[in-house]
Amino acid sequence: MSVEHSAKREIPDATVARLPGYLRALGQLAAVDVLSVSSEELAHSSGVSSAKLRKDLSHLGSYGVRGVGYDVTHLSYQISRALGLTHDWPVIIVGMGNLGRALASYGGFATKGFQVVALLDRDPAVVGHMLDELVIQPMDALDVHVTPGEACIGVIATPAESAQQVADLLVSAGVSSILNFAATVIQVPEGVHMRKVDLSTELQILAFHEQQRVGIDPDELLEGAGR
Amino acid sequence: MSVEHSAKREIPDATVARLPGYLRALGQLAAVDVLSVSSEELAHSSGVSSAKLRKDLSHLGSYGVRGVGYDVTHLSYQISRALGLTHDWPVIIVGMGNLGRALASYGGFATKGFQVVALLDRDPAVVGHMLDELVIQPMDALDVHVTPGEACIGVIATPAESAQQVADLLVSAGVSSILNFAATVIQVPEGVHMRKVDLSTELQILAFHEQQRVGIDPDELLEGAGR
Repeated sequence: MSVEHSAKREIPDATVARLPGYLRALGQLAAVDVLSVSSEELAHSSGVSSAKLRKDLSHLGSYGVRGVGYDVTHLSYQISRALGLTHDWPVIIVGMGNLGRALASYGGFATKGFQVVALLDRDPAVVGHMLDELVIQPMDALDVHVTPGEACIGVIATPAESAQQVADLLVSAGVSSILNFAATVIQVPEGVHMRKVDLSTELQILAFHEQQRVGIDPDELLEGAGR
Repeated sequence: MSVEHSAKREIPDATVARLPGYLRALGQLAAVDVLSVSSEELAHSSGVSSAKLRKDLSHLGSYGVRGVGYDVTHLSYQISRALGLTHDWPVIIVGMGNLGRALASYGGFATKGFQVVALLDRDPAVVGHMLDELVIQPMDALDVHVTPGEACIGVIATPAESAQQVADLLVSAGVSSILNFAATVIQVPEGVHMRKVDLSTELQILAFHEQQRVGIDPDELLEGAGR
């Protein structure tokens, strides 16, 4: 047990980054009542090689059964557990523009181990309004919702020009994990985890496939650029 | 040249999926005026091993210079070219709720090779309103904007219950690449590329790091679940 335990503790970052993809693929299988899945199928729908999938899952102590594959429900649970999603994480969303509102009412968070506990905005015209059973609060309310040392994830959904200031406020309140949706680079002190979401990432992958399909030759553009 | 050419054509899907991440990391370096980057640094900020980074970039015919690394601007251009981002892709966004509006006004698309050419909604109360210099149009307008066989990316930002119907409409109009933001699984015929964006993916990765930091032991939960 202790060997299994210590193996679990050392999940490489690259594996962690792929786990949500596996979880998503498993969720899609569960939605259409698939009970078990081969490593090849799961790898294919997750966009990785099956060798890598098996390696990744072995870090969780999870091995498929030859000829049967992985149990969809159990593997989902194992990945959720590894990611820390089997209990709710409090999430604070800052910035109640279109994106902040979209995130606040995004159905996917609640079912995936996240609970939006506060919606904040600095605009007095917005503060006090209700959104999905929460009252939008001023930035001062940050201290009420964050206890330094306790888990809390801050989501920045403000315009780019306010993002750094909001990040600073989150950090001084004691938030140690920040998800930045603002289209700008922000700096956080060491010890604070920050991830930036670029909504154009998936569009870029689609563009690659569109390019293959339409048959535009990138070399023409290369030559056109006079390289 | 022909050898280099054919090598470029066979970029593995897993590499394609990582290219936007490299591009984003390079963009962040360029934003702070960094001119060149080592494979180790770029790999670290992209969350992959440097061996994998070098392998991925070799598919693009791109090799760093020993002791100098990669030229940030040139590598950005090479990745953009491989992804097909050196010319604009037309994008149609369907669903003008909070998420659709957020996507329509998301500054990141325009700078990254995408041009939002149409905003559609089936709600007559919304149709006719302006949003970022575009008039929101009814679903019928799909045929005006899509020419079968020509590149076009459709973005679904509707509630989950309308997503499949919208996907069907996009496909019959001739859209062959679809990005689905709706929190549901949709089916598309073979030959249509579909990607699903799960806004909770990055939160899940953050949760993993929060868990490591706060020191919650996943095994306790495992045992609690009575496995």
